[in-house]
Amino acid sequence: MPYPRFKELKPAYGFDDVAIAPGRITVNPEMVDISVKIEGVKLPVPFLASAMDAVVSPGFAVKMHDLGGLAVLNLDGLQTRYEDTEHLFMEIAETPQDKATAFLQKVYATPVREELIGLRVQQIKKGGATCAVSVIPANTKRVAPVAVEAGADLVFVQSTVTTARHVSKSVRGLIFSELRQNVKAPIVVGNTVSYDVTIELMEQGVSGVLVGVGPGAACTSREVLGIGVPQVTATIDCAAARDEYFRRTGRYVPIITDGGLRTGGDVCKAIVAGADAVMLGTPFAQAEEAPGRGYNWGMATPHDSLPRGTRIKVGTKAPLKTILHGPSHLTDGTQNLAGAVKISMGMVGAMNLTEMHDAEMIIAPSIKTEGKIFQMRGLGS
Amino acid sequence: MPYPRFKELKPAYGFDDVAIAPGRITVNPEMVDISVKIEGVKLPVPFLASAMDAVVSPGFAVKMHDLGGLAVLNLDGLQTRYEDTEHLFMEIAETPQDKATAFLQKVYATPVREELIGLRVQQIKKGGATCAVSVIPANTKRVAPVAVEAGADLVFVQSTVTTARHVSKSVRGLIFSELRQNVKAPIVVGNTVSYDVTIELMEQGVSGVLVGVGPGAACTSREVLGIGVPQVTATIDCAAARDEYFRRTGRYVPIITDGGLRTGGDVCKAIVAGADAVMLGTPFAQAEEAPGRGYNWGMATPHDSLPRGTRIKVGTKAPLKTILHGPSHLTDGTQNLAGAVKISMGMVGAMNLTEMHDAEMIIAPSIKTEGKIFQMRGLGS
Amino acid sequence: MPYPRFKELKPAYGFDDVAIAPGRITVNPEMVDISVKIEGVKLPVPFLASAMDAVVSPGFAVKMHDLGGLAVLNLDGLQTRYEDTEHLFMEIAETPQDKATAFLQKVYATPVREELIGLRVQQIKKGGATCAVSVIPANTKRVAPVAVEAGADLVFVQSTVTTARHVSKSVRGLIFSELRQNVKAPIVVGNTVSYDVTIELMEQGVSGVLVGVGPGAACTSREVLGIGVPQVTATIDCAAARDEYFRRTGRYVPIITDGGLRTGGDVCKAIVAGADAVMLGTPFAQAEEAPGRGYNWGMATPHDSLPRGTRIKVGTKAPLKTILHGPSHLTDGTQNLAGAVKISMGMVGAMNLTEMHDAEMIIAPSIKTEGKIFQMRGLGS
Amino acid sequence: MPYPRFKELKPAYGFDDVAIAPGRITVNPEMVDISVKIEGVKLPVPFLASAMDAVVSPGFAVKMHDLGGLAVLNLDGLQTRYEDTEHLFMEIAETPQDKATAFLQKVYATPVREELIGLRVQQIKKGGATCAVSVIPANTKRVAPVAVEAGADLVFVQSTVTTARHVSKSVRGLIFSELRQNVKAPIVVGNTVSYDVTIELMEQGVSGVLVGVGPGAACTSREVLGIGVPQVTATIDCAAARDEYFRRTGRYVPIITDGGLRTGGDVCKAIVAGADAVMLGTPFAQAEEAPGRGYNWGMATPHDSLPRGTRIKVGTKAPLKTILHGPSHLTDGTQNLAGAVKISMGMVGAMNLTEMHDAEMIIAPSIKTEGKIFQMRGLGS
Repeated sequence: MPYPRFKELKPAYGFDDVAIAPGRITVNPEMVDISVKIEGVKLPVPFLASAMDAVVSPGFAVKMHDLGGLAVLNLDGLQTRYEDTEHLFMEIAETPQDKATAFLQKVYATPVREELIGLRVQQIKKGGATCAVSVIPANTKRVAPVAVEAGADLVFVQSTVTTARHVSKSVRGLIFSELRQNVKAPIVVGNTVSYDVTIELMEQGVSGVLVGVGPGAACTSREVLGIGVPQVTATIDCAAARDEYFRRTGRYVPIITDGGLRTGGDVCKAIVAGADAVMLGTPFAQAEEAPGRGYNWGMATPHDSLPRGTRIKVGTKAPLKTILHGPSHLTDGTQNLAGAVKISMGMVGAMNLTEMHDAEMIIAPSIKTEGKIFQMRGLGS
Repeated sequence: MPYPRFKELKPAYGFDDVAIAPGRITVNPEMVDISVKIEGVKLPVPFLASAMDAVVSPGFAVKMHDLGGLAVLNLDGLQTRYEDTEHLFMEIAETPQDKATAFLQKVYATPVREELIGLRVQQIKKGGATCAVSVIPANTKRVAPVAVEAGADLVFVQSTVTTARHVSKSVRGLIFSELRQNVKAPIVVGNTVSYDVTIELMEQGVSGVLVGVGPGAACTSREVLGIGVPQVTATIDCAAARDEYFRRTGRYVPIITDGGLRTGGDVCKAIVAGADAVMLGTPFAQAEEAPGRGYNWGMATPHDSLPRGTRIKVGTKAPLKTILHGPSHLTDGTQNLAGAVKISMGMVGAMNLTEMHDAEMIIAPSIKTEGKIFQMRGLGS
Repeated sequence: MPYPRFKELKPAYGFDDVAIAPGRITVNPEMVDISVKIEGVKLPVPFLASAMDAVVSPGFAVKMHDLGGLAVLNLDGLQTRYEDTEHLFMEIAETPQDKATAFLQKVYATPVREELIGLRVQQIKKGGATCAVSVIPANTKRVAPVAVEAGADLVFVQSTVTTARHVSKSVRGLIFSELRQNVKAPIVVGNTVSYDVTIELMEQGVSGVLVGVGPGAACTSREVLGIGVPQVTATIDCAAARDEYFRRTGRYVPIITDGGLRTGGDVCKAIVAGADAVMLGTPFAQAEEAPGRGYNWGMATPHDSLPRGTRIKVGTKAPLKTILHGPSHLTDGTQNLAGAVKISMGMVGAMNLTEMHDAEMIIAPSIKTEGKIFQMRGLGS
Repeated sequence: MPYPRFKELKPAYGFDDVAIAPGRITVNPEMVDISVKIEGVKLPVPFLASAMDAVVSPGFAVKMHDLGGLAVLNLDGLQTRYEDTEHLFMEIAETPQDKATAFLQKVYATPVREELIGLRVQQIKKGGATCAVSVIPANTKRVAPVAVEAGADLVFVQSTVTTARHVSKSVRGLIFSELRQNVKAPIVVGNTVSYDVTIELMEQGVSGVLVGVGPGAACTSREVLGIGVPQVTATIDCAAARDEYFRRTGRYVPIITDGGLRTGGDVCKAIVAGADAVMLGTPFAQAEEAPGRGYNWGMATPHDSLPRGTRIKVGTKAPLKTILHGPSHLTDGTQNLAGAVKISMGMVGAMNLTEMHDAEMIIAPSIKTEGKIFQMRGLGS
């Protein structure tokens, strides 16, 4: 670039900015395969539940497994701080809104009890389910081996922004290639949104990459820190890295789009953008089986001096089975998410998720309204 | 494209994103020819009424014919399930809103009676009108010959997304080139939004192509499946296919933009984008002659596990004659649709629809508001 | 362009889409010259009042002249249908809203009386003002000579869309080069929005061109006919034609941006886009001197079958002097329009309107809200 | 450019149009250096308080200094017109809204008393703080030496639009190179938004440049004058000038983005766009220590015939310390502004502000809403 140099800005797109174009052939949705593999773990449906306390309990994880997906249990939350979470969650739900933040701050002040880590893992395994757990980078070396020892099948190491190199005065950054040798389980790492970081994480041997930093136009991280990348662009960039890494090495490392997905349409767009799977929080917090009882909250923060998450009423909408597999009674795209993926793939003519990555996507802003009539007809199957 | 490969997104535009620029000459609207031909069938005005139960009855089809347009009768709806639709439609209109969906689901559960197919076709023919009928792909081979036998002049085969090739385990896909040989009537097929599919359908011998999949920013198919293409871009792409097919073969196959059109302005933009005709639902459901009595609904769905359409109150606004030919008492563009096309063509200097295809169109978002004054003056004719 | 051919769409911009960038030098606003010349007629301030009945009466035209601008009298409206307009306008203002349209349709049904044309022209001339009159193309050959005979200094020939060539079965189109020979006064013609038409009109000898067709995002012509071009792009295109025509011939024909201007900011943007003058309706209808008494309406329509304009309450805001020259008591940009142009030119460093045409303009959407604080300081003069 | 010439428009972006992308490495926020130097004056945190009467009093300036930032005292406002401002500000706050404008116009009619200039400077210096004062160009030659004599460390010369050359009949424009020789203190000049003007001001020897003219989409200068440039683009352009000037001369002159910043996110974006520091008004008017007592107003105007600023209720939100350094009790980005910059830099992997200039920024419109949940996790520090 010649002098003078002006900073250049690249356009980025989110779910509401794009739409999928139908394909050249159509496929009967019943023939479509939507399974995904994270190293040795195969999921019949490519849906993960976020490691949020209000979303995933051991019981929820078993239910999610039975329905073909995977729920990730937060090992830094209430499940490992309290033995009797049943009453605790009830109390949280019953606390008046004006006292909720203070109450949450209090219950999270209790320290994590190491013995509960094994207990939670075993509860999930006893239910016959794949056990996935989530740890924060600072605790990973200590907590991850304990969880794997107890039977955890997958370890998620998650922070708001993850890179392969962290600079710190006090602590030596987590080196995933070392971690992989000490922990005998596949490691999924995130979150990132960039091509370079995704390549570097894969080169360090991780088994999956979580995509998504400040994805929404109204995200707290955007307001407070200015940081955030809309999910379609983030997924496209990380998918390019996955494909390039696969081309160079022959190892296929799935990427999981995490955050900002609300509807079946969002999920389909994430997959067309290149996602191998998706991770959802609030849509699953609305399941009857979710421990949050119609509420959701985020407790962890990037820094002590920033405020902790607030309790949000999300409502209880339907059984998890309905949310994932229908039948749907609503036209807003929040139910039968797996069915929506299959039907969308049918219209696009994709037999599996990899073929869905090749579908055409257009820039076409959508407006979420209600009450519009649109005639849809049978696919001719 | 070099490695790494990043998915590219193409911008797409809808009616509210564009406007027509006036031309280099002006023409007296009285001199303008807006007729269109679908194989042997010539329509004085390029307007089709959607094959929706709340829009087209045999009586409505006759009225539409008398006014120069063409109404398409749905052979998979109430007209072929019940002999006395008069009372049925009255009952639908009188059902309270909270019971409407359940009631509609009940009345559509009744099976189609084959003998009613012939009856409806004959009612339209007896009225002296061109008879166009609509069938879903799965029923086409069985139903289409019956309708044509009874006198149907045109067969529309419609599904949400149509391609020339459908992959299915159980059923052999519909091959339009075979169908064309078995059914002695022009076949209009849709819906599609792509250049490739339009070319392929035309190569299979169809007589017209319907353009439009999830056209609106608030379409259910966008929310639920992520799929949809704004109509201006869809029409431009399919028109390019039509023109290319004509260049190669000398056969001109009209394309019909179907869905998302509300105003005269939308219709004019569709034509400038390349449409030979337009198909409207709700604007005609608002006619006094529409069987829906001020309501509209879509019953068919792409999959059993997704919810069926809801009854929407659209209101009864004016006689069909006023909607098509005016005089208009409103400035919102919902009346005198054919007149609007002629005046718009006059300003653009187009003598017929083909010349209107060459008008200039610009990207200029419109906002639908009310009460703005704008001075319009005589064209000097 | 190779086959296949896809229609291309050009982006277009309106006042709310752009902003002016300050210049490399600043100028004391008192030193700025904002005068403009339309053939022999020099205007100290580049403001014209639209030929609308609710805006311009003979008395208003005299006042406008005294303040440095030019008001155009509509010769096809109430002033030439009624001798006593005083009472008529009072009656219009006093008619309840639900009966206003019917009443207006009735009063406009009265035919134009040729003797009133001369009377109105003489009233303006007696006031010592430049007299500009507006006629519709169909009446031009008959009415224009009468008006010029009576003393009119400028003739405006206006229709929604004007071109140099009009195709009609019944009437021979108006040829401006012929008209110019028969009418001994400068002729200003419009409206147009295109480079080609502007060049052609100038080649026919017109003395000015009005720019603007369906400029607003909410214009009736956009809703009804799909036609309209945002004013910044329209002005840029027509200004390019003016400059090119001047380069070829040495004759400088001013262009006047007409329609869609509300604030001083809009006026400044029109000038930077290339306008030599601006024509405003509603902002002047809000003057205490406007005959509409706080109302505005448009009666003429492009076709009989489309509805006639409605009466809009615009309110009476301030004396015309305040609107044009301040001092302003508001921060919404609706007062001191000429002062705003001078201050803006000072910030841009333009000594006259031609230099203002060279200012930099950026794409930067504006949102019209209220109550935002922004610190503005003296220009250091 | 060949003939004909069409004016070209360049896209411009504001804070709500962009977002920062996280970097390839992450850094522990505690290791980050956010200090900035304006010639000899070093600020631990890159925050300046606007020279507005409702924001900066001598007491506020001392407090700001103690917290690491710099407050600029307005020498053309109430502090130099009245000795007892305590009671005056109380009266302003207690005046009913409908009488506020008149009251403000009255109190600003009192002339500036030269002896109060020295008094205010000494009050700040006695508090142990760096003293920065603001003067308007017309008064600079007279007032600046008095202030510097009394001990002022920095002189800000501010007008809405500043260039290196001002054309005026009556007054000789301010030449900054001459001024620099007569005033023995660093001079910071503004506002500008252009590459050329920034280069020219730096060539005249100024010590800092203020960036920002009509930055907001709803700015008065946009409505009234059409003038304004969104801050991200303005900052990018002026930063390119600063870097180019530094490349040519080796002298680094900081640029300060002034106006339109509301949240920590806005501040981070300004820095990534190239700002060395930021200047805020309203966010500091909301401090408990601000003299405005929950109100803000702008009195100066670019021209006498335009209206003077109105009093706006901004509310009193928190102590200045909380606004700058937290801890934050809100998630809207209005508190802990300096902390937000550090955390954002940690996510981007920038060790200091210069490295932050190299971060990636994307075009991604943000919508300011409330109540959205977004899970943020520890940075692993």
